[in-house]
Amino acid sequence: MPPLDLTADLVTLTRALCDLPSVSGSEREIADAVEEALRALGHLEVLRDGDAVVARTHLGRAERVVLAGHLDTVPVARNLPSEVREDPEGPVVWGRGTVDMKAGDAVLLALAAALREPTRDVTWVFYDHEEVASELNGLGRLVANHPDWVTGDIAVLGEPTSGAIEGGCNGTLRVEVVIPGKAAHSARSWLGVNAIHGAAPVLQRLVEAVPRVAEVDGLTYREGLNAVGIRGGIAGNVIPDECVVTVNHRFAPDRTEEQALAAVRELFEGYEVRVTDTAPGARPGLDHPAAEAFVREVGSRSGRPPRAKEGWTDVARFSALGVPAVNFGPGDPALAHADEERTPIADLTLCFDALRGWLTS
Amino acid sequence: MPPLDLTADLVTLTRALCDLPSVSGSEREIADAVEEALRALGHLEVLRDGDAVVARTHLGRAERVVLAGHLDTVPVARNLPSEVREDPEGPVVWGRGTVDMKAGDAVLLALAAALREPTRDVTWVFYDHEEVASELNGLGRLVANHPDWVTGDIAVLGEPTSGAIEGGCNGTLRVEVVIPGKAAHSARSWLGVNAIHGAAPVLQRLVEAVPRVAEVDGLTYREGLNAVGIRGGIAGNVIPDECVVTVNHRFAPDRTEEQALAAVRELFEGYEVRVTDTAPGARPGLDHPAAEAFVREVGSRSGRPPRAKEGWTDVARFSALGVPAVNFGPGDPALAHADEERTPIADLTLCFDALRGWLTS
Repeated sequence: MPPLDLTADLVTLTRALCDLPSVSGSEREIADAVEEALRALGHLEVLRDGDAVVARTHLGRAERVVLAGHLDTVPVARNLPSEVREDPEGPVVWGRGTVDMKAGDAVLLALAAALREPTRDVTWVFYDHEEVASELNGLGRLVANHPDWVTGDIAVLGEPTSGAIEGGCNGTLRVEVVIPGKAAHSARSWLGVNAIHGAAPVLQRLVEAVPRVAEVDGLTYREGLNAVGIRGGIAGNVIPDECVVTVNHRFAPDRTEEQALAAVRELFEGYEVRVTDTAPGARPGLDHPAAEAFVREVGSRSGRPPRAKEGWTDVARFSALGVPAVNFGPGDPALAHADEERTPIADLTLCFDALRGWLTS
Repeated sequence: MPPLDLTADLVTLTRALCDLPSVSGSEREIADAVEEALRALGHLEVLRDGDAVVARTHLGRAERVVLAGHLDTVPVARNLPSEVREDPEGPVVWGRGTVDMKAGDAVLLALAAALREPTRDVTWVFYDHEEVASELNGLGRLVANHPDWVTGDIAVLGEPTSGAIEGGCNGTLRVEVVIPGKAAHSARSWLGVNAIHGAAPVLQRLVEAVPRVAEVDGLTYREGLNAVGIRGGIAGNVIPDECVVTVNHRFAPDRTEEQALAAVRELFEGYEVRVTDTAPGARPGLDHPAAEAFVREVGSRSGRPPRAKEGWTDVARFSALGVPAVNFGPGDPALAHADEERTPIADLTLCFDALRGWLTS
């Protein structure tokens, strides 16, 4: 493939990134391309860890801003190669990754090329394995291996927010609820105990649970509690001896992981609950001076006030390092992972201009 | 190996058959041995189709009885070679196949040799591929290729019944019940429809369903309705857009496959129901005069009344040809496929004597 041209227009750069498929675990090629393009700029120190690439200025500015984006996507659903389409609301870039989050990556990469002397020192971070299990996360690996590479006064994650600043994020917890049974031949089912039938009350508790809505530092966080997987059954003629329901709980940042788990254990009292994956939420952190300047810059351009981030994002990893972090990027987060994933071209320009304004003011 | 000696005692013959392993798909050697031994008798017409062997008398009797056994077993589980062991209840032949169903085959082969002039014409059938997918079944192949080879007034399958007559069998139907949903990111679950949560009422209907108990021709059949599989979920952060529950219905032989399916469709009204697998039941057929004579013969020797067969067996294949069929053989069916498979030697004698009495009276 030809090298990435970071000086191309934002649509061309977004499409070039999308058309280089990089489902989680297969980010090598795109990471190589990003590293090569950043090195070619000449004004950045470029570092690499696995398939994560870090590039930064050393201008001796009073503040350092970290701008980060992940390079991986969820699996392609016959929605590549990317296209430019006309939506009723205006032109969009359509295809896997346009929302989550190669349009955001394109904005950051274009800024990395355009801003040779920003008024704030900048660290650009592009990383792998965001769409899969938390322990694989490339930003988590950087935080563990090289915390100095990703530290700053404030971090901005280019995740989709339709060009609004979204503060903090919900935490996320995944558990397996295990329903036991006893195997038997299905012709003599009364000799067994059907574990799948035993899952009925577990699912009913999920149906009846009313998720909490929490106000945190002035922003509103909506929780969620959902089965995201179920499995059970040995063979077509055997009464199943186990059924496992995988549950994902999204919890507001006023709760710790331990508090969220306690709530889930209480809901499923009487059943074995195995934790498979957990990540803390992050409070909004909009009271930091650098964050306030960014909020003013975005507000003056778009008129959009900051709001709570609904999905878990890696802002929580910065939060754990003591670095306040917000989400800000092109694309409607409701379209992330959708087959009809698409981002308004106007979002690309808005995000690029707002970040450039902030980093050069 | 030496030829099979069909005039040996029943224990020796059972062990010789067991010690010639013949897991489904590997029946060639045992089928060759059986064919050779039956041809050597001289008083039978011997036919062959694949690894199925058919031998029959042509004595011009008023009735023809078909006696059948399959030659294959489930995989060996370190339970060969066979042994004679002392159980608390008496001596047993132990090892793979002793129950399902080489002890039964031994009884039939010994009778084939012993009964040179039975009072009913006899067709002996030994076939392959009973323990695997229905479409491979050797008896099914004979019914399709050579229905005249396996037709008679009544059929007896030597499957294990502990020496009782088990009449007919339940039919079996497998369906998939499909619960639709709408995918969304689990951080914004309110934008989706959770198909796994939607399975709660489907499972609840299964929990509440009371299986029918049906009296058919004097025998009692217990039905079953069970989820044997469930699947749903795309990824740990996606609201699932489909959940599929696989349901196995065992239905009494007073219902056709169509009636059973109608009952299942009614139970799951409002959901898509896909049929994946269906096989009819078989009525006991004990009102046939030849069956009545057999019931009397067994009753006078063992005192055991006929009962319903719980699992689906190949009697249904005879039933489909219009031939009433029952199960009657040595060994406890609950030990079929068990690692500790074993058959009381007393069962061998009982079955041999009862069949000889019936076929010579």
